[in-house]
Amino acid sequence: MDIEDMLSFAKRKGFFWQSADIYGGASGLYDYGHLGALLKRRFEDLWLSYFVNSNEDYHLIEGSDILPEKPLVASGHAERFNDILVGCSKCGSFFRADVLLSHYKIAIDEGKSPEEIDDIIRESNSVCLHCKGRLMPSKPFNLMLSVALGPENKDKGYLRPETAQSVYLNFAQEFNVLRNRLPMGLAIIGKAYRNEISPRQGLYRLRELTQAELQIFFDPQEWNVDLKGIEDRKVNVMFAKAKEVESVSARELAGRYGLPGFYISKMVAIKEFYTDVLKIPEARFRFLEKDETERAFYNKLHMDIEVDVESWGGFREVGGLHYRGDYDLTSHSNGSGHDLSVNVNGKRVMPNVLELSFGVDRNVWAIIDIFYRKDGERSVLQVPPYLAPYNAAVFPLQKDERIDEEADRIFNALRKRMLVVTDRSGSIGRRYARMDEIGTPYCITVDYDTVDERSEKHGTVTVRDRDSKAQERVKADEIEEFLSKRLR
Amino acid sequence: MDIEDMLSFAKRKGFFWQSADIYGGASGLYDYGHLGALLKRRFEDLWLSYFVNSNEDYHLIEGSDILPEKPLVASGHAERFNDILVGCSKCGSFFRADVLLSHYKIAIDEGKSPEEIDDIIRESNSVCLHCKGRLMPSKPFNLMLSVALGPENKDKGYLRPETAQSVYLNFAQEFNVLRNRLPMGLAIIGKAYRNEISPRQGLYRLRELTQAELQIFFDPQEWNVDLKGIEDRKVNVMFAKAKEVESVSARELAGRYGLPGFYISKMVAIKEFYTDVLKIPEARFRFLEKDETERAFYNKLHMDIEVDVESWGGFREVGGLHYRGDYDLTSHSNGSGHDLSVNVNGKRVMPNVLELSFGVDRNVWAIIDIFYRKDGERSVLQVPPYLAPYNAAVFPLQKDERIDEEADRIFNALRKRMLVVTDRSGSIGRRYARMDEIGTPYCITVDYDTVDERSEKHGTVTVRDRDSKAQERVKADEIEEFLSKRLR
Repeated sequence: MDIEDMLSFAKRKGFFWQSADIYGGASGLYDYGHLGALLKRRFEDLWLSYFVNSNEDYHLIEGSDILPEKPLVASGHAERFNDILVGCSKCGSFFRADVLLSHYKIAIDEGKSPEEIDDIIRESNSVCLHCKGRLMPSKPFNLMLSVALGPENKDKGYLRPETAQSVYLNFAQEFNVLRNRLPMGLAIIGKAYRNEISPRQGLYRLRELTQAELQIFFDPQEWNVDLKGIEDRKVNVMFAKAKEVESVSARELAGRYGLPGFYISKMVAIKEFYTDVLKIPEARFRFLEKDETERAFYNKLHMDIEVDVESWGGFREVGGLHYRGDYDLTSHSNGSGHDLSVNVNGKRVMPNVLELSFGVDRNVWAIIDIFYRKDGERSVLQVPPYLAPYNAAVFPLQKDERIDEEADRIFNALRKRMLVVTDRSGSIGRRYARMDEIGTPYCITVDYDTVDERSEKHGTVTVRDRDSKAQERVKADEIEEFLSKRLR
Repeated sequence: MDIEDMLSFAKRKGFFWQSADIYGGASGLYDYGHLGALLKRRFEDLWLSYFVNSNEDYHLIEGSDILPEKPLVASGHAERFNDILVGCSKCGSFFRADVLLSHYKIAIDEGKSPEEIDDIIRESNSVCLHCKGRLMPSKPFNLMLSVALGPENKDKGYLRPETAQSVYLNFAQEFNVLRNRLPMGLAIIGKAYRNEISPRQGLYRLRELTQAELQIFFDPQEWNVDLKGIEDRKVNVMFAKAKEVESVSARELAGRYGLPGFYISKMVAIKEFYTDVLKIPEARFRFLEKDETERAFYNKLHMDIEVDVESWGGFREVGGLHYRGDYDLTSHSNGSGHDLSVNVNGKRVMPNVLELSFGVDRNVWAIIDIFYRKDGERSVLQVPPYLAPYNAAVFPLQKDERIDEEADRIFNALRKRMLVVTDRSGSIGRRYARMDEIGTPYCITVDYDTVDERSEKHGTVTVRDRDSKAQERVKADEIEEFLSKRLR
């Protein structure tokens, strides 16, 4: 699938589409339809269970999307959360400098100033990509969206550019409530907002996005944790200066590459989330290391989490693992005048931060792309059964009151344990095809035999498996157990 | 508890507090700590399961918080989503006109114009509540927060003032995907934003709030559904002109009060959600009918859902049941040029909307207020076990490696099925007290007997019940089943 195919599939089946589409749509803003909302929640719940609820020191919190100005001045976002913008003097188009120059095969570092960019534009004779007009001097463009609060709109606020900031602002209060212990992990699944210059590629670059982020606060002295039990686990990494992906064991990451144990343990956990929980093939997952010129200045270690997605044309970023040092708590200590250093084990420490950051929308897109298969006439969204929007479908096969009643009874019993859908119209083949396309792993058919006391098959239903296409008769009263076993 | 007690409890235990509190806080913006986030999710999940997943025609979707300008012009919000603002000429304070006048015991209707308000202020000799200064002419103040999008900030957008608008914008697309059937229910649990003039009372009046809303689109000819099976169910209603709450059966609501069957069926469902699911005492729940002068002009029927909350000083609104007619789809048909009427049963219909709207933050506040009990020295958050932030706590009683291992094993087995917490420090009494205060219904203690093979109690743990304070020994291997039964 290319991007257009994907957008068309997603809209036709009920996954996602541009916001306000009856008004012509809104650039960089997407809505999730009923299937997309379910799939997104599945991803979020799996993420939460795997990364947060599995550790007694990690917790989910929620922070407001709107933040006052001061913390975002302190964090550096008000000054530095910029893209460099280049405008055309003739047609008025705007481009992100790096996007513009990439058309001339020029790659530029994160930290380039507008003056340096203007030099590069001049030297390369770059012109407007739309009309070939002369480009105006480039300028920094802050990506935060501001809002004016209060009865005279005098109080400036911002929509948070990353959920992480809400966590840092709550560090002191949670550290206190959770009884002064490190490590302490605080996670948020929530919205972040960026006034992207050119939002594009469906869910890849959005003006409003959902992030799932876990910030782990730790004593830097505890950085080199032991790798016991995971020394031989391997992950695919593309190192910053390397030309190829390498499969490297945790032991080698510590030894040959000198990475700290705590960082490595999270690399392994992230890799296994993709391969063992989401069931994404090992070869389609990798870390991409960013060096000093490519990463944010406060990140001391930075690996992008990348997945190979056909509609994006190869490996693209779906998350990141960032060692942010003590930059965040130091900045907010200075900005707020509230000292965020803490006492642990009898010494004063400014906790360091390891950030696990995931773009939920990008992951949802990647999951659909990777698991959608065409097999002749048949289209199947072959996600793991527990990741499917609906776990099961219930079909009353013929129009008959007793069949409807029994189908309702089964639907109502199952819906307390899993997400179930019904489909009451069309041939059984059509109904299977519809369910295959949206990934429903099990279809349960109630027919005359189910309700006919004289039939040998009385009290049983047909269960059809999405992947094997096998059908078997199962006792209606055992259907819940039958499915529960297969949904783990 | 009064409001201050509640805010202090919520902050101390980890439920919620003002955003950016290390910077002095942000008016009308709140963050949820780890316990608040859990309790909020519990409410949302129960709501979703009860109102949405129980009906095969109802679905959850998600819409962007930012909307372009056009639909909010069409919906009337850009022109009419106003409060009347009165400023002081001397000290510069601002007041909402109705709040100001309520201090003079004057109640004003929804629809009053600024000129009418100025007359009332003059006639009543009202002055500034802070400095007694002269009040300036009142003026309409739009409550929507606007954002400027795009590289030149030229595209005006708004943060949606109600999640409902995202649903109306998606009606056509979902109706199509869901194969052209009415009734069709679309729900959103998400943020809405309002630039409240004077945010106050903790989570009661926020600038950023979470709504759980279900919009049911239906053919107006199907409005008078039969009440079969629920004729005798009773709800408490305070009718618009009445002085007292009445307990009225569904049959009487249809007969004596002439309410339509579909509306009544949802009144009963809402009432039973509060009394049977949330377990709020019947006497603390009621509907409050709003008449033409009190409700939004497009609502043809409007009942507030109210709960009696000590910290708010009595019954206050936590939701509403609104019959919005065809106002919304007609407005967006006109605004977008996209005809939203549909063909059902061979005729052209503009679907009508019944809206079930709940303020999630207000409900969370109400739940804590209602279930928090002081019993001598003992403080207990006596919520139903399935509504508690944590379903169970695991305590390793003594410091011993085998005890720790067994506690970890139990924690890890349970956390796949429910939310569990550990507490490893302090006396057992202290640990029970901490769990009582945050509502944990079951505490599981692992001790020497559990791990000592020579003990008669080998392989068993102590389970302590929050409400009865009873303790019993349960086989460690049966603890999951033991709890699961009690958490339904």
